[in-house]
Amino acid sequence: MHPTHPMHPTHPMHPTHPMHPTRPMHDAPSGRPASIATPSPGDPRIADLSLNQWTTRHWTMPEAIEGCARAGIPAIGVWREPLQAHGVAATAKHVRDAGLRVSSLCRGGFFTAQEAAQRADAMADNRRAIDEAAALGAPCLVLVVGGLPPESRDLVAARRRVSAALAELVPYAAAAGVRLALEPLHPMYCADRAVLSTLAQALDMAESFPAAHVGVVIDAFHVWWDPELAAHVARAGARIASFQVCDWLVPVPSDLLLARGMMGDGVIDLRALRAAVMAAGYRGDTEVEIFNAALWATPGDDVVATVARRYVEHVV
Amino acid sequence: MHPTHPMHPTHPMHPTHPMHPTRPMHDAPSGRPASIATPSPGDPRIADLSLNQWTTRHWTMPEAIEGCARAGIPAIGVWREPLQAHGVAATAKHVRDAGLRVSSLCRGGFFTAQEAAQRADAMADNRRAIDEAAALGAPCLVLVVGGLPPESRDLVAARRRVSAALAELVPYAAAAGVRLALEPLHPMYCADRAVLSTLAQALDMAESFPAAHVGVVIDAFHVWWDPELAAHVARAGARIASFQVCDWLVPVPSDLLLARGMMGDGVIDLRALRAAVMAAGYRGDTEVEIFNAALWATPGDDVVATVARRYVEHVV
Repeated sequence: MHPTHPMHPTHPMHPTHPMHPTRPMHDAPSGRPASIATPSPGDPRIADLSLNQWTTRHWTMPEAIEGCARAGIPAIGVWREPLQAHGVAATAKHVRDAGLRVSSLCRGGFFTAQEAAQRADAMADNRRAIDEAAALGAPCLVLVVGGLPPESRDLVAARRRVSAALAELVPYAAAAGVRLALEPLHPMYCADRAVLSTLAQALDMAESFPAAHVGVVIDAFHVWWDPELAAHVARAGARIASFQVCDWLVPVPSDLLLARGMMGDGVIDLRALRAAVMAAGYRGDTEVEIFNAALWATPGDDVVATVARRYVEHVV
Repeated sequence: MHPTHPMHPTHPMHPTHPMHPTRPMHDAPSGRPASIATPSPGDPRIADLSLNQWTTRHWTMPEAIEGCARAGIPAIGVWREPLQAHGVAATAKHVRDAGLRVSSLCRGGFFTAQEAAQRADAMADNRRAIDEAAALGAPCLVLVVGGLPPESRDLVAARRRVSAALAELVPYAAAAGVRLALEPLHPMYCADRAVLSTLAQALDMAESFPAAHVGVVIDAFHVWWDPELAAHVARAGARIASFQVCDWLVPVPSDLLLARGMMGDGVIDLRALRAAVMAAGYRGDTEVEIFNAALWATPGDDVVATVARRYVEHVV
């Protein structure tokens, strides 16, 4: 598929595969030749890189943990579905034994239901998520707050229900030592995923609570377009509980839920955004979170190698 | 396809076609039975309704003018492509003879090119658009400001070029008596269509110039999600040069450029938004602008009839 150039089998612009020195490395999912060598475990440039495990969605929990360890990626963003499949205690032990950190647990939220029974179910599920985050030692539980309920056009009321649910959940989370992290989602998801659409709005909501208990997620994909981004990243300061990166592709892929690109394949100035997040005082991991069908069809080790290279090239 | 109910051929919930009393009316593009009778020409509820002609894209300029006149829609939002195809003077006369108003001319802008030659081309084209708006007597020229140029990740610089181009164009527009109308586009178009993404940002830019020369467009599709919308609609006041409606569909159709829905088929509270726009002092027409392939495949008269019904049901 990608034959090595016969004259330059180890051309520095086309690093070769470490196991197959005559085979050049290619980035996933673009298939473009890698332009740098894959960082080795221990490379200081990836010292705060985290793999959000939905980026390698078809890996099981143990596969993701071992894949990170093999590649020298020191942290992992955990999703609840694979966590529950492997078991919370088993995962916590496996992560610890592999020498990894957990950077976040994804995800709670979905607070906008109108009916009492649905609302009670959501609150119960959020309490379970908080328990899981505590058991894992995750620094935060990411909250996707939910969109408009069926048949509703009332955004203001939906946002009010989010605030009310958050207020109800904070004492439980605080008692468990878990920080809740409000994630503003791109406005194109306002109707069906999250009525929280900007960093400013997330901060307005978070600031009713102590920063130790409620923070915000800054995900480049969701906020990069915001004309007020710089001001609100600075304002966010110690509220930044999680920082996530991927890229915005042009044109936007047709499935909006799988529209995320590998860093460097799109138009977001990720390096500038990370610098702003660090300048605001954030010292946690930078999670790579990419929902992309072509990437999911790529072997996990190749995904992780590309993630590490592109992180060095486009983020830090 | 939609047989009349044999027992209730003229059931009030299923108005029948005026030309075919046994055939019920159906809304485009949903195919759902119409729930009200189509407003007749002269109906005061459609006194400020305007058909943006891209809603009936396959109609020529004369067809669109005559279609509006036939349906009693008193105003039309004109696009430059059909305008140029029919001729500016011929269109102006045809609109006048049909007793219609022009509510806007779409569209100028595309100010973000980096290269001098491309930039000069864009400015020349905008001056032509201003001349056309003046010849038509359009109350404003809608500006879609442009996205990131190829290979660029610098939103701040792109926005700066928009401001510079606008400053250069305002004297020409003012001399021609044409008001420029900055349109913030939904953030999902930030990369490739418009680096102007919120009403607040458009107002910040417009407010460097007199309100008579630079206003803003409020298009429900682009701004409905904004948590600060109410405050900025009120702030916009006399800056509102154009108000456009359609609906936000769930799930979002796969082609983002054709993702707009008929009013009532989606989740936007259009009536509340229109009330806010009117409360801010706007007294112009309300334009229906729907880019939707299924609608474009529907005969124009059926589209226009649905537009009038849904406008009454969901907007005024």
